[in-house]
Amino acid sequence: MNHRAMPNDVLSQRDTITPFEFRQAVRSGQFRGPTAGYCGDFAQANLAILPMAYAHDFLRFCQSNPKACPLLGVGEPGQWHVPALGREVDIRADVPGYNIYREGKLAKQVDNLAEYWQSDFVVFAIGCSFSFEDMLAKAGIPLRHVEEGCNVPMYRTKIGNQRAGKFGGELVVSMRPMKGADAIRAVQITSRFPGVHGAPIHIGDPSALGIENLAKPEFGDAVTIRDGELPVYWACGVTPQTALMEAKLPLAIAHRPGYMLVTDIPNASLAVF
Amino acid sequence: MNHRAMPNDVLSQRDTITPFEFRQAVRSGQFRGPTAGYCGDFAQANLAILPMAYAHDFLRFCQSNPKACPLLGVGEPGQWHVPALGREVDIRADVPGYNIYREGKLAKQVDNLAEYWQSDFVVFAIGCSFSFEDMLAKAGIPLRHVEEGCNVPMYRTKIGNQRAGKFGGELVVSMRPMKGADAIRAVQITSRFPGVHGAPIHIGDPSALGIENLAKPEFGDAVTIRDGELPVYWACGVTPQTALMEAKLPLAIAHRPGYMLVTDIPNASLAVF
Repeated sequence: MNHRAMPNDVLSQRDTITPFEFRQAVRSGQFRGPTAGYCGDFAQANLAILPMAYAHDFLRFCQSNPKACPLLGVGEPGQWHVPALGREVDIRADVPGYNIYREGKLAKQVDNLAEYWQSDFVVFAIGCSFSFEDMLAKAGIPLRHVEEGCNVPMYRTKIGNQRAGKFGGELVVSMRPMKGADAIRAVQITSRFPGVHGAPIHIGDPSALGIENLAKPEFGDAVTIRDGELPVYWACGVTPQTALMEAKLPLAIAHRPGYMLVTDIPNASLAVF
Repeated sequence: MNHRAMPNDVLSQRDTITPFEFRQAVRSGQFRGPTAGYCGDFAQANLAILPMAYAHDFLRFCQSNPKACPLLGVGEPGQWHVPALGREVDIRADVPGYNIYREGKLAKQVDNLAEYWQSDFVVFAIGCSFSFEDMLAKAGIPLRHVEEGCNVPMYRTKIGNQRAGKFGGELVVSMRPMKGADAIRAVQITSRFPGVHGAPIHIGDPSALGIENLAKPEFGDAVTIRDGELPVYWACGVTPQTALMEAKLPLAIAHRPGYMLVTDIPNASLAVF
């Protein structure tokens, strides 16, 4: 590990450090923490790891609910290296925090999966809104939760997911309040990136989604909605996590929320037009 | 003129008649009236005709205000045939109604420009929302003014146009109320067609545009806005008409509102991606 991977240096070089260097710092234990703001030009991924017995149903779930669960990569059964995600990725060690679920309940938080890995595990990497937030910010669209220094507000809707085997539940959305013209620009920008949730699924009236109170998000933090602003809703990567927990599998593993896998996939490469 | 161009047959074959056949029916006097609903797969054009002395400023005006004034074609000085618009187009006779303006005031409505044509006239053909309304309808997005059998509501905003010479004034917008999800789809669809006004310029709060009362449009008719719907606003082809009138030119000619030039340009060919 060269000096660039020391924790303070990782923090000071969040824009210039490469995803490979960042993962090395994680693997060696020199970086622990939320990954927001690091390697901003590259996609970060939500992670789900589950035994092969459930993998086919979970894959069907993702493919049937593509706005909430856009797949960036699926590993070969038993493999912790997923080449589509980056050079020499080791899924067991390159994520700064993991949640171990047993029967749908958080059983343990760990830094490394070495002692949990099973030869029948299948890795799913799912696109994350950090990618499109980077695009929105570069286009000059203010993000309220960034301005207010908190997490994006997320809401459980009454829109049922397409069920596949044990995996079902309801769509979870993230919400960003915007002026009308910014909402139009945000639709245009995010439409180009279906691999990271794509276009919003709704604008305006929260009751159309079955959301009762925008001031009380189920996940994340409430943000200010100013006069004349519209709430804009995107399908959220928490959807597959809640589906995974509600399925109550004997064992399943996910990243610790906010502690994402930093991939080698340039955000710009995910544009479909 | 074959039997297909007889007035009743034009009406009965509004989907199958070709733009060329439609223009022949207009030229021969067998069709007079609004052109909405005819030759739905082809672009219809707003028309402005003015003397060369003002043409350069008007062209600069259109190019500086492209959302309101997307140019489908500009004629050579003195020419009434504009090949970009269609086979054998005669701008003097192929539009079912013309408005003659003198000093910015409507002086006369005529069916044919034969006795008004000047060797220094320049023709401007500007894209029309009929094209994107056809796209929206085909995508299953309901259009309230069509449902209510009236004209689309249009509003004079407080957003100043980019001035060019005598041409200035304020942006005029058309408004279509929609559910949030339809508004998102409408942004996606119309973004592909900048040649016919492109994406909306605003969604939601009318006061952001300086519109005081959505129930009182300056042009067209008010439509119902239902609970949970959002008003979606597009730049409107009435903008160059009002700019033309406010410029108070000694002489200028436009199509009679709703009586458009039906071109040979397939709407689908206007998609930029």
